[in-house]
Amino acid sequence: MAVSLGELAVRYGCELRGDPDLCISAVGRLDSDEPVLGFVASAAYRQALRETRIAAVILDARLAGDAPVPALVCANPHATYARIASQLHPWPAAEPGIHATAQVHPGAQVHPTAHVAAFALIEDGVSVGARCFVGPYSQLGTGAQLAADVRLVARVTVCSGVVLGERCVVHPGAVLGSDGFGYARDGAAWVKVPQVGTVRVGQDVEIGANTTIDRGALGDTLIADGVKLDNQIQIAHNVVIGAHTAVAACVGIAGSTRIGERCMIGGGTGITGHISIGDDIIITGFGMITRSLDKPGMYSSVIPVEEVRHWRRIVGRLKRIDSMAARLAALEAAAGIAAAPQQEDSND
Amino acid sequence: MAVSLGELAVRYGCELRGDPDLCISAVGRLDSDEPVLGFVASAAYRQALRETRIAAVILDARLAGDAPVPALVCANPHATYARIASQLHPWPAAEPGIHATAQVHPGAQVHPTAHVAAFALIEDGVSVGARCFVGPYSQLGTGAQLAADVRLVARVTVCSGVVLGERCVVHPGAVLGSDGFGYARDGAAWVKVPQVGTVRVGQDVEIGANTTIDRGALGDTLIADGVKLDNQIQIAHNVVIGAHTAVAACVGIAGSTRIGERCMIGGGTGITGHISIGDDIIITGFGMITRSLDKPGMYSSVIPVEEVRHWRRIVGRLKRIDSMAARLAALEAAAGIAAAPQQEDSND
Amino acid sequence: MAVSLGELAVRYGCELRGDPDLCISAVGRLDSDEPVLGFVASAAYRQALRETRIAAVILDARLAGDAPVPALVCANPHATYARIASQLHPWPAAEPGIHATAQVHPGAQVHPTAHVAAFALIEDGVSVGARCFVGPYSQLGTGAQLAADVRLVARVTVCSGVVLGERCVVHPGAVLGSDGFGYARDGAAWVKVPQVGTVRVGQDVEIGANTTIDRGALGDTLIADGVKLDNQIQIAHNVVIGAHTAVAACVGIAGSTRIGERCMIGGGTGITGHISIGDDIIITGFGMITRSLDKPGMYSSVIPVEEVRHWRRIVGRLKRIDSMAARLAALEAAAGIAAAPQQEDSND
Repeated sequence: MAVSLGELAVRYGCELRGDPDLCISAVGRLDSDEPVLGFVASAAYRQALRETRIAAVILDARLAGDAPVPALVCANPHATYARIASQLHPWPAAEPGIHATAQVHPGAQVHPTAHVAAFALIEDGVSVGARCFVGPYSQLGTGAQLAADVRLVARVTVCSGVVLGERCVVHPGAVLGSDGFGYARDGAAWVKVPQVGTVRVGQDVEIGANTTIDRGALGDTLIADGVKLDNQIQIAHNVVIGAHTAVAACVGIAGSTRIGERCMIGGGTGITGHISIGDDIIITGFGMITRSLDKPGMYSSVIPVEEVRHWRRIVGRLKRIDSMAARLAALEAAAGIAAAPQQEDSND
Repeated sequence: MAVSLGELAVRYGCELRGDPDLCISAVGRLDSDEPVLGFVASAAYRQALRETRIAAVILDARLAGDAPVPALVCANPHATYARIASQLHPWPAAEPGIHATAQVHPGAQVHPTAHVAAFALIEDGVSVGARCFVGPYSQLGTGAQLAADVRLVARVTVCSGVVLGERCVVHPGAVLGSDGFGYARDGAAWVKVPQVGTVRVGQDVEIGANTTIDRGALGDTLIADGVKLDNQIQIAHNVVIGAHTAVAACVGIAGSTRIGERCMIGGGTGITGHISIGDDIIITGFGMITRSLDKPGMYSSVIPVEEVRHWRRIVGRLKRIDSMAARLAALEAAAGIAAAPQQEDSND
Repeated sequence: MAVSLGELAVRYGCELRGDPDLCISAVGRLDSDEPVLGFVASAAYRQALRETRIAAVILDARLAGDAPVPALVCANPHATYARIASQLHPWPAAEPGIHATAQVHPGAQVHPTAHVAAFALIEDGVSVGARCFVGPYSQLGTGAQLAADVRLVARVTVCSGVVLGERCVVHPGAVLGSDGFGYARDGAAWVKVPQVGTVRVGQDVEIGANTTIDRGALGDTLIADGVKLDNQIQIAHNVVIGAHTAVAACVGIAGSTRIGERCMIGGGTGITGHISIGDDIIITGFGMITRSLDKPGMYSSVIPVEEVRHWRRIVGRLKRIDSMAARLAALEAAAGIAAAPQQEDSND
């Protein structure tokens, strides 16, 4: 699909510098040899911009003077690029209809504009909205509901009663509504606690490959509008994630924890159960969160690798830091310097 | 399904305080507005108990006096709640029989009371016990064996030769019996070592969504009776997990490690290979275990997040802790204070 | 399948000590009671070797004198064992042909010697090479290409355009070519950036169960020849992994990071985005890598668990290490000892 720069400028509210009839059919990098549309979102790429030979670029007014090619000038080049790229590279069209190999229960309601792919399985009481794409091997358990324009890319398991809002996208291998990890101890053994809640997902949520979201034990697990979840995330029962929060890959969130709006959780982070993370909190990758945080800001506990011999010395010292502190106090006493306990606690 | 309090009291060995004919059909929270059955397992909920308006509660004798509604009094309210909730909210009934789309090899034995769902695949030499539920997209490789009452919820891959004991439950996306990660180095390249063992799982084991358990290289990977595994756990070849051990989500256990009975392994923990963890060991979340542990107790290496500017100063200091120790020793020498090396090692 | 020691010696270039007509049909451990073929790769097993009662062993010249049974003597016993074990325990034979339940688009090209299993789905423009095994529930998206002898064990999702080289093996639940995690911020909301690249995998790559590899945003994600990836690894968009690098389970690699050749990445390691790891770098398990590394060697940031009471004291001290350093400096000033800042920075 090719679109002229003039059309793009009008549709996405850009100022056009260059030929409005120039047609674009693909996006690409600044250093591409193809006649693609690129973008620059940072002055760090100014030199690459000056040398580019692609067809056109999206950028902001500060960089517009450096473009050697036609330019779409706008306030947020990255977002404008994202929208234009989505127009040029849309999801493959899905024909309305149900594949011959799919199994659809007579008690399910599938909108006539929806596509149900090969080997999909739709159980009793399910509702599938307009223009949904139920990909191959996707299963919708009893009573699950997909609002309009939901896309289950492939092999998505949506367990009974799970609700997905409009325009959600779920990638292969994701499991929504599996049982939470709930047991009562009885002597040495564990007695399973039935997980009778479900999962409710808002609009415009994207869920990555092999991510798992457990259903609530009592009450529901909630994922609010606009949340973005990367691959291989684990979300335990009764977790609540606020609107527009983005969670990178390999994060684990334990049961009943609440995360606020517009947070950004770095990859590999672990969040313990039954705590509360406020709005606008950023966690760097590999963070370990064991208590509630409410002050907006950026938090970390990452320890970057060192050469192993040096690292082992550091760990050996760390494991004896308590005796180092005692030796320090003894020296202070010998020198007649008073330790300042209130200062010691200031960073707690 | 509704049951009277009188029946529940008799069946679960509770003392009933209140109307034995009151009928219950669902469980719920103490603060629910519905006529549900709740439970209290801790005096921390005493006030919520006093204010509850649900139909009835399960609790122990200490709290019984505070219940404003009928009560089932017993020694272990959480376990009793779990059992009653399982009775009120059973797994959906599965009709005996094999779905028309399932593929069952003529050399497989499927018990007539078992259910084989749509798109299931059962290969040669498999045996499926009484009342098993082989969910959609579940595959039983050659010679795999399911004892009675096993439930493969959906999309479970059971590779060849894997054995599951009675009443095991496996959630969607789990893979049992994939090849272990075994290679011999030959120059720069790796030569695959065939993984000729299998996986043996005891009775009453539950395995979470997208968890993976590798088959043994030589000999088998063993999961003992009553083990509970959460989602997204990775268990490598030849690992042994003892009875009634519970492992939370996102844990990785490397090859040939043995874990004892009744352990509790917190989420996100990593356990290195070829070590041994004793019985009754508790690891807090995000622990890193690199050597054997035999003394029962609770272990941790978690480092909670700090504000990033403060954290970076801490890491900077930590990376120089070795020179801090040297400076401390120099001060002690200057002050005529002898360092106490035996004390230094006391926490090793 | 049984093979004589004489044949094995000729085929794998070993010196045979013992009866060339002795036939072997399985591999096993040194302590097995069965007439199996074992191996010894380290002098640590010398005593076990002396006591073995298995049929024959593979070992090197240093240990040959200790073998009480026939021996295949070679320079690299582990690699020779791996090759012989692969001959004795081959993948189950797959009949050429397409299962009746598989769905193959007429625009796909499937080599007549390939096997397409039950419930497989092959879309338009796909090419499947000679002797490939497309396992049950495996999906090949539009234009995906499998070179000869590729094995998708079961339930592998290969998204559109993904290319796999000869002899690749992919285990159940893996997802190749899912969308990368790319969004542009627009106010509070996120705008999806289409992921228009793909994934290119070289020859002899093995990919573990439930591992996910995202397609490139622009340009491709690249996995070079001979790379071995364990289970539950997450590889983000535009990552490049060099030849013969081995990555253990539960590793996460963020976007656009480049990893060199012959690296070994320990389990549970996290690697941040947009950095570069050189050749021949070893990371111990649970490492956190936040900046580029180029010097070959072994790196770590693992902190082994301690008993929780001791550990909490250590963390408390660590969080105040900054004030410890200040106190140390004050003592040095009082004692007239100059701090050595250049030494402080030496380990940075």
